[in-house]
Amino acid sequence: MRVGVLGGGQLGRMLALAGYPLGLTFRFLDPSPEACAGQVGALFVGDFLDEEALRRFAEGLDLVTYEFENVPVEAARFLEGLLPVRPTPKALEVAQDRLREKTFFRELGVPTPPFHPVEGLEDLEEGLRRVGLPALLKTRRGGYDGKGQALIRTLEEAPKALEALGGKGLILEGFVPFDREVSLLAVRGLGGEVAFYPLVENHHRGGILRLSRAPAPGLSPDLQAKAEGYARVALEALGYVGVLALEFFQVGQELLFNEMAPRVHNSGHWTIEGAETSQFENHLRAVLGLPLGSTAPRGHSAMVNLIGHRPDLAQVLALEGVHLHWYGKAVRPGRKVGHITLRREGLPELEEALPRLLSLAGV
Amino acid sequence: MRVGVLGGGQLGRMLALAGYPLGLTFRFLDPSPEACAGQVGALFVGDFLDEEALRRFAEGLDLVTYEFENVPVEAARFLEGLLPVRPTPKALEVAQDRLREKTFFRELGVPTPPFHPVEGLEDLEEGLRRVGLPALLKTRRGGYDGKGQALIRTLEEAPKALEALGGKGLILEGFVPFDREVSLLAVRGLGGEVAFYPLVENHHRGGILRLSRAPAPGLSPDLQAKAEGYARVALEALGYVGVLALEFFQVGQELLFNEMAPRVHNSGHWTIEGAETSQFENHLRAVLGLPLGSTAPRGHSAMVNLIGHRPDLAQVLALEGVHLHWYGKAVRPGRKVGHITLRREGLPELEEALPRLLSLAGV
Ligand SMILES: Nc1ncnc2c1ncn2[C@@H]1O[C@H](COP(=O)(O)OP(=O)(O)OP(=O)(O)O)[C@@H](O)[C@H]1O
Ligand SMILES: Nc1ncnc2c1ncn2[C@@H]1O[C@H](COP(=O)(O)OP(=O)(O)OP(=O)(O)O)[C@@H](O)[C@H]1O
Repeated sequence: MRVGVLGGGQLGRMLALAGYPLGLTFRFLDPSPEACAGQVGALFVGDFLDEEALRRFAEGLDLVTYEFENVPVEAARFLEGLLPVRPTPKALEVAQDRLREKTFFRELGVPTPPFHPVEGLEDLEEGLRRVGLPALLKTRRGGYDGKGQALIRTLEEAPKALEALGGKGLILEGFVPFDREVSLLAVRGLGGEVAFYPLVENHHRGGILRLSRAPAPGLSPDLQAKAEGYARVALEALGYVGVLALEFFQVGQELLFNEMAPRVHNSGHWTIEGAETSQFENHLRAVLGLPLGSTAPRGHSAMVNLIGHRPDLAQVLALEGVHLHWYGKAVRPGRKVGHITLRREGLPELEEALPRLLSLAGV
Repeated sequence: MRVGVLGGGQLGRMLALAGYPLGLTFRFLDPSPEACAGQVGALFVGDFLDEEALRRFAEGLDLVTYEFENVPVEAARFLEGLLPVRPTPKALEVAQDRLREKTFFRELGVPTPPFHPVEGLEDLEEGLRRVGLPALLKTRRGGYDGKGQALIRTLEEAPKALEALGGKGLILEGFVPFDREVSLLAVRGLGGEVAFYPLVENHHRGGILRLSRAPAPGLSPDLQAKAEGYARVALEALGYVGVLALEFFQVGQELLFNEMAPRVHNSGHWTIEGAETSQFENHLRAVLGLPLGSTAPRGHSAMVNLIGHRPDLAQVLALEGVHLHWYGKAVRPGRKVGHITLRREGLPELEEALPRLLSLAGV
């Protein structure tokens, strides 16, 4: 089977590496000739909105999926006229608009932080009255890695924040004093069967994921069941096929939905070594209509992102249970250029070894 | 780092898939334009004995290794004049000649089946007197997957066997009534450090490996230590760098050396999912001068070869703990086209699930 992937970054690269053993071949579409998936599969350089490019890209493929959630929905819809596109473009549509996304989940009965649409100062003031202070003003579209956000601590800061984010097309959210951030990697097969990885604990810095622990330490079966319940209704409502990542704020034993990614996700990279079947393989199994693989964890894992930093390979690889994933990208400040997973049978051994890895990774 | 691989079969393919996460790139040299590693890396089609082809192949590479032990030694030696070639071509030389190989190990104090060089009928008769009956007559060079062998059960069969194998350049071996066949995957780093995977139990049919169980059930620490001791002296004597596979006949708690492969080996494929670090990654770590990774097993694995048979993927992938490796080769009778690893935490669960896999795999 020939799989087309919209986007040619590290997620596409890891999809291909997981798919070759299944006998698949890969073709990526990306606007950049430098896209790092091109090192491991065929790269078509083209604009997502160029119908001619999309047509050429689709030729001879069996199906298309994506590794980048800001693919224009029109591109996915156009391709849908030519061949199966999984997951459904509707998921892109929902994920690309924070207001639509939060509304969608709230309507499904999934708790979210309080939020309010903002198209001007009046909305913002009304919103601040409803969600309280502090609050976060975010662009509805295009934000990633914490970009496109402004924290509002006092009413006086409101106009400046509004101006900084362009004045409209925004969403205001109550700032959640969360205990921690967790994410759920869910997968739904073509026949509707679902599977879930254990919740992951995530630590961000500067808006970028730095460290994930999986399974999330101290995870209770109830919390896992709650997250799975939320994911299940979303998967069903979207008629979703593939891996879906849901990010939550954990407050006590409650989960508030933050955002979704209709694709494999950075907080699921630990599954390559830390679970029986990786998120990448399970995404491919799902979109191909194959049975899902076991999502059972194997021991305890910590995943550390390499952000704008190439560590000393020999020092990293000298640590037991370490698995390096270098993406073949040029190192630039703030850029995700790789990740390292540390796997151990038990959590105490993992925690003991982690500080050394964090220091080598420059986290 | 740019790694060149002599040979472009499935072993090369799996080396590349293990090496991409380390940030490596790969170039394969193979006489066939169909070589399946070409689906995941750059394939140079050329004859191993064409110096011009070797020179072009080597250009811009950082080092060369092999995935095929019948690479002409001259090719490896020629390349050694241009860039590092690991493991040493001497290992190829030893492995390519069964007489030299068995003599080498015997001289190191490693037990082997009784053997005798055969250059004609006189040698054969002398050999049969020494090694006894039944005996196996084998070509010294070029045999693989049980080809180039003749079983001699009675003295009368000797001349016919001799003729069938060309009359000279042969080795006669006593037929070992072994309890089972086992193999050791050993790896030696550039700095001389060594690591060993647990012994694997192997089952052949028609001279081709069908099934491996790892760790070998009932493996005693003594037997493991014995195998490691044998491997250690061989690694040292060769100044070996990389993964070396040793095949033994187990008789009681004794091990008789059968043959070596100076490369990653079919009986080590289980390490992809069944060990902390795969044989492929450890081979690359070794030849690149990086620290070796942990060879600790994770649970119990069975590896089943797919020989000339494409199983029903959906049925195979429905089994829990199953990991498919399809090599992207055309299916032909007797051809290794893939393998499947089944991994479970405990041996009893593994044995319970195995029959179903064997039947799907057509074993
Ligand atoms: N309502 C909120 N309350 C508290 N913290 C928040 C809230 N919204 C976002 N954050 C913090 O900011 C981080 C980034 O926010 P969010 O996930 O919305 O942005 P993003 O730019 O889309 O990030 P990503 O690249 O992970 O998709 C969150 O992980 C969290 O730490
Ligand atoms: N001396 C022996 N006594 C008993 N059985 C033997 C002997 N030599 C070989 N065999 C049997 O034949 C099989 C193949 O033999 P051998 O490993 O020498 O051949 P090969 O063609 O090089 O195989 P491979 O492809 O595994 O390298 C062995 O795995 C074993 O089952």
